[in-house]
Amino acid sequence: GRGGVNRQALSIAEGEARSQLLEWSETRGFKATVDAIGNLFIRREGTDRYALPVVAGSHLDSQPTGGNFDGVFGVLAALEVMETIDEHRLATQRPLELVVWTNEEGSRFQPTTMGSAVYAGAFTLEKALAAKDRDGISVAEALAEMAKFHKGATSRPLGQQMAAYIENHIEQGPRLEESQRTIGVVSAVQGLKQFSINIRGEEAHAGTTPLRQRKDALQAALDLAHSLRGAMTDANDILRYTIGRFEAFPGSPNTVPSRVTFTIDLRHPDNAELNRRSDQITALCRAANGICSVELRELLRSAPVQFDPAVVDTIRGAAQSLSLPSLDMVSGATHDAAFVAGHCPSGMIIVPCRGGISHNETEFASSTHLANGTRVLSLALLKLAGPDFSVDDPFVENASIT
Amino acid sequence: GRGGVNRQALSIAEGEARSQLLEWSETRGFKATVDAIGNLFIRREGTDRYALPVVAGSHLDSQPTGGNFDGVFGVLAALEVMETIDEHRLATQRPLELVVWTNEEGSRFQPTTMGSAVYAGAFTLEKALAAKDRDGISVAEALAEMAKFHKGATSRPLGQQMAAYIENHIEQGPRLEESQRTIGVVSAVQGLKQFSINIRGEEAHAGTTPLRQRKDALQAALDLAHSLRGAMTDANDILRYTIGRFEAFPGSPNTVPSRVTFTIDLRHPDNAELNRRSDQITALCRAANGICSVELRELLRSAPVQFDPAVVDTIRGAAQSLSLPSLDMVSGATHDAAFVAGHCPSGMIIVPCRGGISHNETEFASSTHLANGTRVLSLALLKLAGPDFSVDDPFVENASIT
Repeated sequence: GRGGVNRQALSIAEGEARSQLLEWSETRGFKATVDAIGNLFIRREGTDRYALPVVAGSHLDSQPTGGNFDGVFGVLAALEVMETIDEHRLATQRPLELVVWTNEEGSRFQPTTMGSAVYAGAFTLEKALAAKDRDGISVAEALAEMAKFHKGATSRPLGQQMAAYIENHIEQGPRLEESQRTIGVVSAVQGLKQFSINIRGEEAHAGTTPLRQRKDALQAALDLAHSLRGAMTDANDILRYTIGRFEAFPGSPNTVPSRVTFTIDLRHPDNAELNRRSDQITALCRAANGICSVELRELLRSAPVQFDPAVVDTIRGAAQSLSLPSLDMVSGATHDAAFVAGHCPSGMIIVPCRGGISHNETEFASSTHLANGTRVLSLALLKLAGPDFSVDDPFVENASIT
Repeated sequence: GRGGVNRQALSIAEGEARSQLLEWSETRGFKATVDAIGNLFIRREGTDRYALPVVAGSHLDSQPTGGNFDGVFGVLAALEVMETIDEHRLATQRPLELVVWTNEEGSRFQPTTMGSAVYAGAFTLEKALAAKDRDGISVAEALAEMAKFHKGATSRPLGQQMAAYIENHIEQGPRLEESQRTIGVVSAVQGLKQFSINIRGEEAHAGTTPLRQRKDALQAALDLAHSLRGAMTDANDILRYTIGRFEAFPGSPNTVPSRVTFTIDLRHPDNAELNRRSDQITALCRAANGICSVELRELLRSAPVQFDPAVVDTIRGAAQSLSLPSLDMVSGATHDAAFVAGHCPSGMIIVPCRGGISHNETEFASSTHLANGTRVLSLALLKLAGPDFSVDDPFVENASIT
């Protein structure tokens, strides 16, 4: 293993990816804009300059040891479609826009899906800019460093309206592969809550301090994690309960830890069940206050989302017209589209990934699947952008000359 | 809190402390030597140049958020005694040496008490030099960086013989304070074993991967830690069981951890009991191998140590002659003296610290206690170094002029 892709949010590596994207876009004459949270937009004008744009995209940031497809597929699919439409000199009525959302992974900065949450007004810009990574660098500081990669991009206000939004993504689960379908048509995204738990005790010497006199933050954290695990069971295996980060401080073998921080990622398609489980977590954390103090913070709340039926139908229809077998599905992963859905009619096009493995260097999607997902996107965008293209073959030479 | 002292082993901060010590020593004409693991010796010659030296010292490295006294007291006490003896122009028969042991804390590099363990042949130089910190920097590389701070020090072979060794240290526990005694005379050091446990599973997406399909290294680690906690109980509260470091990788809230590393620090005054508990740990780790793999490594083993009765008697006698109430004690903390005791007659002088708190920025020892401990050291060193000084008042002007 080589550790996979490490292109963390607002890092130099992500900056270089953004810069490459802008270079490709500039050769097409597409215009770039960037908003206050660093969401990057690339626009191809339509015939009606006052019409709201139809938008497609995803994110460029990755997990610290992530795969080659998560996020970047949706961005490159949107670019490919816009380039192809441009090559065929098709004039759409509405402008087309590609979007790169900032910090979808939530790995360097919490919360996850930061850019789209701020865009949709679900998370304040102020809180987002103040979020810090482990080295104490804030989003605001990291964004300032990004400026040099955003050459040629002008500023735009936050939350500008869109006519529709479609996001292409790999599945990150096994269902498409198991069902032998090519295209996942996402009707809904399960709900998500993320928490950070901070436990404080007192540092002490491991050799001299009797166990009865300790305020051992790690043992308190282990006890709490044990009772949480007991409570977060689900015979149907629908609930998703994950502790992804767990760290003891100061982290020396012969010092009793004074502080432990861990995160909880909790997901369920049913909002009432999600709230019930989240209430259990709150109660267990409260009960765990004793020799050590336990503080629970909600990092992010994203209720289950139903995508717009018209967009969902458009995507399903595009797959059908290309004779690609599709599967309607509820997405287990959250995506920027879940926040954008609160802002404009939205949908998602999912392609299979091998073994359902993601957030892992072995993540893989075949070029056939990626191309098919991109073809579905092209038909869906043209349909939504208008005028009334033939969805059977929009790219017949000179179908409509700009 | 300001986070306490952070002078980690072989860091620039420790280098600067060593450099300061060498500067003070040079003004006295003391000679400095350094061995292959970076143990630093400062020598004042005796009248018999072929006699083995009587040595005192401790360490200069600290925990990441340590106190002002742990280690550095023993080094400065030895310097103070050598300077005072020099000022009074006392000629000792044996040379006196001050020693700074490398990496006692074991916080940056494992194992703890590295320098004295290598010195005494309990740990190989090769393994010690290969040990790496979290940034992948090896002891060998860090030692190379130290050279510039060791100005004027020449090389010496590892493990040169000593006539005797005494280490001054703060107690790091509450017993002296509770018993209202001023000087702790250490008769023994409890045994210590340190382990590192490495658990491997598989990264997966927190939103999509059903719990049944996960190989969650963190949940496996929590289960193991829970059963260890159940086994490591002791109604008499004599056993010391500590998990000081605990980290999940890659450490992103929405990724199922593929790897967890944690450490165990285990101590008991009775060797059979220490071995029995350590066997339990081995058995529980073996039993925990399942969906995730569990690997246990012993980082360090230090059997309980009995100090040399003659040295212990000398220290107790010195306290008596100064009318300082003393307490014979078994040290809960391990110290470099525990390894040196396998090499030459050794002993320790302990002074009280407030509330027994150590490895913490609030660590405190009064200047009266520190001075008393240093006075006891001066008498004991003179007694061991010979010739036959009056232990009642060795510093009477011109008692013996060099």
